[in-house]
Amino acid sequence: METIRFKLTIAYEGASYAGWQAQKTGTGVQEKVEEALRRLFPGVGRVHSSSRTDTGVHALGMVAHADLPRTVLRMPAGKLRLALNAHLPEDIRVVAARRCPPDFHARFHAAGKQYQYRVWNHPVMNPLWRRLAWHVPQKLDLAAMRAAASLFVGCHDFRSFAANRNYRVENTLRTLRRCDIRRRGPLLTFVIEGDGFLYKMCRGIVGTLVQVGRSRFAAGDIRGMLAARDRRQAGMSAPAHGLVLCKVFYSAKPTRQATPPPEDE
Amino acid sequence: METIRFKLTIAYEGASYAGWQAQKTGTGVQEKVEEALRRLFPGVGRVHSSSRTDTGVHALGMVAHADLPRTVLRMPAGKLRLALNAHLPEDIRVVAARRCPPDFHARFHAAGKQYQYRVWNHPVMNPLWRRLAWHVPQKLDLAAMRAAASLFVGCHDFRSFAANRNYRVENTLRTLRRCDIRRRGPLLTFVIEGDGFLYKMCRGIVGTLVQVGRSRFAAGDIRGMLAARDRRQAGMSAPAHGLVLCKVFYSAKPTRQATPPPEDE
Repeated sequence: METIRFKLTIAYEGASYAGWQAQKTGTGVQEKVEEALRRLFPGVGRVHSSSRTDTGVHALGMVAHADLPRTVLRMPAGKLRLALNAHLPEDIRVVAARRCPPDFHARFHAAGKQYQYRVWNHPVMNPLWRRLAWHVPQKLDLAAMRAAASLFVGCHDFRSFAANRNYRVENTLRTLRRCDIRRRGPLLTFVIEGDGFLYKMCRGIVGTLVQVGRSRFAAGDIRGMLAARDRRQAGMSAPAHGLVLCKVFYSAKPTRQATPPPEDE
Repeated sequence: METIRFKLTIAYEGASYAGWQAQKTGTGVQEKVEEALRRLFPGVGRVHSSSRTDTGVHALGMVAHADLPRTVLRMPAGKLRLALNAHLPEDIRVVAARRCPPDFHARFHAAGKQYQYRVWNHPVMNPLWRRLAWHVPQKLDLAAMRAAASLFVGCHDFRSFAANRNYRVENTLRTLRRCDIRRRGPLLTFVIEGDGFLYKMCRGIVGTLVQVGRSRFAAGDIRGMLAARDRRQAGMSAPAHGLVLCKVFYSAKPTRQATPPPEDE
């Protein structure tokens, strides 16, 4: 059957899901998206995503591709998105559904990603932010945190900041273009942008930066942590519910990479 | 029993409550706060609030006062707030608990309030905003909305924008200091500040402004609506879940008013 490839941009609240992929412990967002596609096009195959977010992590700009039967072309513009959303729970939304080249691959062609992490830094949690921000009640030294954050920018081996997976043969070098912290009252937003991310890397960076803010580490300690290539040398992992996958970047001319990058947050 | 008066600043997510006050249809936030106080000080009386928010409306800066036994003075600073929050559900937080003059009255001495209302203006709802913003998928003419919003500023009879209560004898004149709309991408934030608000007045203003944005009304129609003093002449009421009571203002020297202002949003 001849198919037409579509690029889907998907937003979701992670609280009710075991992450993008289904786990023994629960449903994945992927399953819900595939179910919705099959309600419209029975027999549609897998949806392939740019990233596999972890349990409880949110997304505003997850990207996935799916191959749909040619009948999709009969739908007026905007209809596919509308029809998919009608079959999805309200904590998952298809933000965009656009036809893409047949060789576009959401994962292999991803050139970079932006994550944001939110911390509510006040003695009392804001009940309107409790599902989307990590509550850190202690005073934080923001200047020290910003100095530390800047040390993550550039190309580094991030093994010390990723979960202890089996990274013996894998390339754990990643390049961060941005790692900065915006403050608006008690709300801190960490913006982390790079060419790729190891498993739980963002949460390791944010957890460590918060510990710098609490003077558990000095800002300059980041250098030694990166050099150690050992998870035990870095700080704690920040909880999942503060993290949002915001954007996935694709270069104008995607080229298939020789080896797929390892899994993400 | 001699008591000490405390001013409480309270934040809550309105979704699970029938508003500030208990209704036949459900629990009020007030009940929960009173229960928490009685866990610490059995026999404590009523808590008096600045406003009675409606079912589903949120607050970040609700103000209330309560009279506590003198034993509260033995608590170290910050302990009362901590202890109250330990007895409250996580969708209600006491942000501040401070001793105030014995004649301070949260309602009668309130000199003004600020409400904010959020609209997500995009064809697809953002799942992370779905509990806190009204989804308006249609294109909105923001310039027309802003022109209309400015016509609410000043002293007006707001009867046309309040719910049809029994306003025969009441004074329905109110003064708005601010009624403006901020845009950040698809997120619109209406900031409405005034000396007082009639029941459902903010939601009537926002609902009407959104209908101006959809060209259902012209910006200048606001003048005629205000003059009509008739709810049927104004636009729709915006849903509760987009509204937040942000701040209650008190003048430096509170003076008891001759007549209590009518109920709020």
